[in-house]
Amino acid sequence: MRTYLDCIPCFYRQALETARLAGANEIIQKKIIDELSKLIPDFPLEASPPEMGKTVYALVRGIIGVKDPFKEIKENSNKLALRLYPELKQEINNSEDRLLTAVKLSIAGNVIDYGVKNSLNVEEEINKIFNKDFKIDNENNKNVFRYQEFKEILSKVKHIIYLADNAGEVVFDRLLIEELTEKLGKKVIYVVRDKPIINDALIEDALFCGINRTAEVVSSGSDAPGTLLKYCSPEFIRIYQKAELIISKGQGNYEALSEEDKLIFFLFKAKCPVIAEDVGCNVRDMVLVDR
Amino acid sequence: MRTYLDCIPCFYRQALETARLAGANEIIQKKIIDELSKLIPDFPLEASPPEMGKTVYALVRGIIGVKDPFKEIKENSNKLALRLYPELKQEINNSEDRLLTAVKLSIAGNVIDYGVKNSLNVEEEINKIFNKDFKIDNENNKNVFRYQEFKEILSKVKHIIYLADNAGEVVFDRLLIEELTEKLGKKVIYVVRDKPIINDALIEDALFCGINRTAEVVSSGSDAPGTLLKYCSPEFIRIYQKAELIISKGQGNYEALSEEDKLIFFLFKAKCPVIAEDVGCNVRDMVLVDR
Repeated sequence: MRTYLDCIPCFYRQALETARLAGANEIIQKKIIDELSKLIPDFPLEASPPEMGKTVYALVRGIIGVKDPFKEIKENSNKLALRLYPELKQEINNSEDRLLTAVKLSIAGNVIDYGVKNSLNVEEEINKIFNKDFKIDNENNKNVFRYQEFKEILSKVKHIIYLADNAGEVVFDRLLIEELTEKLGKKVIYVVRDKPIINDALIEDALFCGINRTAEVVSSGSDAPGTLLKYCSPEFIRIYQKAELIISKGQGNYEALSEEDKLIFFLFKAKCPVIAEDVGCNVRDMVLVDR
Repeated sequence: MRTYLDCIPCFYRQALETARLAGANEIIQKKIIDELSKLIPDFPLEASPPEMGKTVYALVRGIIGVKDPFKEIKENSNKLALRLYPELKQEINNSEDRLLTAVKLSIAGNVIDYGVKNSLNVEEEINKIFNKDFKIDNENNKNVFRYQEFKEILSKVKHIIYLADNAGEVVFDRLLIEELTEKLGKKVIYVVRDKPIINDALIEDALFCGINRTAEVVSSGSDAPGTLLKYCSPEFIRIYQKAELIISKGQGNYEALSEEDKLIFFLFKAKCPVIAEDVGCNVRDMVLVDR
């Protein structure tokens, strides 16, 4: 997906939030805003938002001198999500359609996102998918929640790569991956970012959340907040090319890959009007679409 | 009020919205964004937001070549509000405390604001103030709705200047001014912007909405989206200095005058978190405070 002009105010907001998280004072924050302003005229809209996101966060990190401003937030998200794991597993065990529940939970986990405004409440989100509202929403948005199609494709493939989004959310991914591997006999490779970027999951998050018990964990080789193939390692590209199916989590990965010619199912919660417009859904919709 | 760093993304959003309203294509919109980016590093945060607002809108107008992009919106707001006038007057006539109802209506009219995000619905806003919710809100926010204090001050003054905010809202101002002049015997001068800026009221809007039947109408001499004294005409400054009380409508006028040493009551709906923080209230609160 290309960058829209409406993404630009959002880059400023994200830069400010990151700087504040890292404890930067207002003088430093202003410096970040000023330096970002100098980059804007040269930024091509044809590039996708994670491309600019990568530049923005590198700029912020460079000025504040903190390598991983979201470290503590990521650790807390992982712990919170792990505490929920047994209860969520039980929900899956009790459900009529285990895979559907696991898919919904995986998307619910995508609310753990500090790149997008609004303090979204994870537990509230989880409760929502277990009550009627989700079903109603779902009925109204069949075209962006293509579960039957997803299930059908799944039945035909063996090797899947699963692109991670955020820390914490990893636990929700694990629940879905366990269905894919333990119940459906698939082979899954779980792909995380190579270096810190926003609260995106790294190898350490995947291990902490126990993904390695059910899937192979690799890094994409890139630190963009979305899987931009041109920044990925040759090792990852080989895995990507061989994959029969890609499950892609989060807006950033959608932005990076929505125009790629590959069998990809995108799972995320639409958090901004620009994405919603591009997908053809409403903000806050749960999205499961292929491209 | 000074400009906060959070105002900067908002300037971009406003520039984009104005350009789109005027029918600018994406290339022109990008040019506006780029030119705005060049101004940001030189913009001092000590200046108030309407100062930057003035610059932003001048830049947009210059690039799109449209003098008054909000002309049609303003005309429609005026017509909509005038259609409501008889019914609103009746509400005042039927109310126990005419002045209180007129004050509430005047603040409700402040939702007609295209400088701030969110398509706020005027009729919904009006309905709200006539139901219980407003009273409850009001109880919780006594410190930002200082009606008794306002009433007391009013009883001691004769000459009032009333600083207008938006077109359409003018009709709601008229209802309050009619209470001040016809019922309380005050002399009111109604002050509008000198030249088009966002959807702010001009002389033509004041006349169209019939303010001249109940108050003298003058221009501030400035086209900033807030009454920044340094841009106002000497004629206005004389009027300002002589006024016993100033009633100031809207966020822009608050931003411009909140630190002035003068008896000013600010009436507005808090529409953004930066203002809310500065005032000490919540977003969406109805505000009636003095400084």
